[in-house]
Amino acid sequence: MLNKSKAEKIVLGVDPGTNVMGYGLLRVVGNKTDMICMGVIELKKYPSHYLKLGKIFERITSIIDSYHPDEMAIEAPFFGKNVQSMLKLGRAQGVAICAAIQRDIPITEYEPRKIKMAITGNGAASKEQVAGMLQKMLHISKEEMDVQMDATDALGAAYCHFLQMGKPETEKKFSSWKDFAVKNADKIHK
Amino acid sequence: MLNKSKAEKIVLGVDPGTNVMGYGLLRVVGNKTDMICMGVIELKKYPSHYLKLGKIFERITSIIDSYHPDEMAIEAPFFGKNVQSMLKLGRAQGVAICAAIQRDIPITEYEPRKIKMAITGNGAASKEQVAGMLQKMLHISKEEMDVQMDATDALGAAYCHFLQMGKPETEKKFSSWKDFAVKNADKIHK
Repeated sequence: MLNKSKAEKIVLGVDPGTNVMGYGLLRVVGNKTDMICMGVIELKKYPSHYLKLGKIFERITSIIDSYHPDEMAIEAPFFGKNVQSMLKLGRAQGVAICAAIQRDIPITEYEPRKIKMAITGNGAASKEQVAGMLQKMLHISKEEMDVQMDATDALGAAYCHFLQMGKPETEKKFSSWKDFAVKNADKIHK
Repeated sequence: MLNKSKAEKIVLGVDPGTNVMGYGLLRVVGNKTDMICMGVIELKKYPSHYLKLGKIFERITSIIDSYHPDEMAIEAPFFGKNVQSMLKLGRAQGVAICAAIQRDIPITEYEPRKIKMAITGNGAASKEQVAGMLQKMLHISKEEMDVQMDATDALGAAYCHFLQMGKPETEKKFSSWKDFAVKNADKIHK
């Protein structure tokens, strides 16, 4: 259980996989952020597909109940090698999403390319480059960085969401000039 | 809430889709079965993907809590048109599976081809043929049959599971002769 001041927000990042699932938690205060923790949920050891899915649900629910995140960011690839692997990935994502929905936590999805671009400036960056930039920007110690890349990927999703949160309202909330004009009629010179 | 005698089992069949999700409930007593009900959960009206997934979870949980099924059978295609549709289908399946896991209900998956084969004797049968056979075998009235095919598909998954339940143990539990021989060494003449 974490004490949280009213001004701060907690962002949970998840990278749902069928063998290893990564998670990372960021504390956001204004335009500053630091890492609370990150880690992985090992799923290979569970013999059945259902046990794996059950474990994802159980662990994400327990992380939510421990850290009370305000938002969840998911690394969500839209393309995959084949339909079977996408079906399995979809199930893992569905269970993770379900855990957040159960606790009324808003979800945002980010494509791996978008996360890499936001963090390194290069959409084709390697996992190591993403991890390196996160370590630098969040001042993560060498010991804390000794985790599987699934954990840093998940932290990357949370960090990408933090960058998105920091964007000015106009950039986020208005999909077009027409939209902006309708919502801000008083600001328009006629 | 349904009163259930000790000798009977309830099987919940689901056909998870991203626009419509079908469900059907069978009461099984020994080698006899009848339909309790079937229906669909309309998802098209919910504007967001997450609201759809949340609704699947909520409704399946509520069906489980109302009818207390002992087992759940899912119609689960392993092949699809493209990776995007399989990812979406996987998410819907994941959420449905999650609802069952949450209530400790064992899950069995059946490919559409297997369900069609079990019910009509033809793996390439149409949805109408499956529905027609179910109507005949379960003595379902014309009024009760006035549902979307997603409901009869789900009932088909439950019925396929009922047929599987009725099979002798040897047919179910041993995957090969070698497997049987190992487990029944005392029965083999040497």
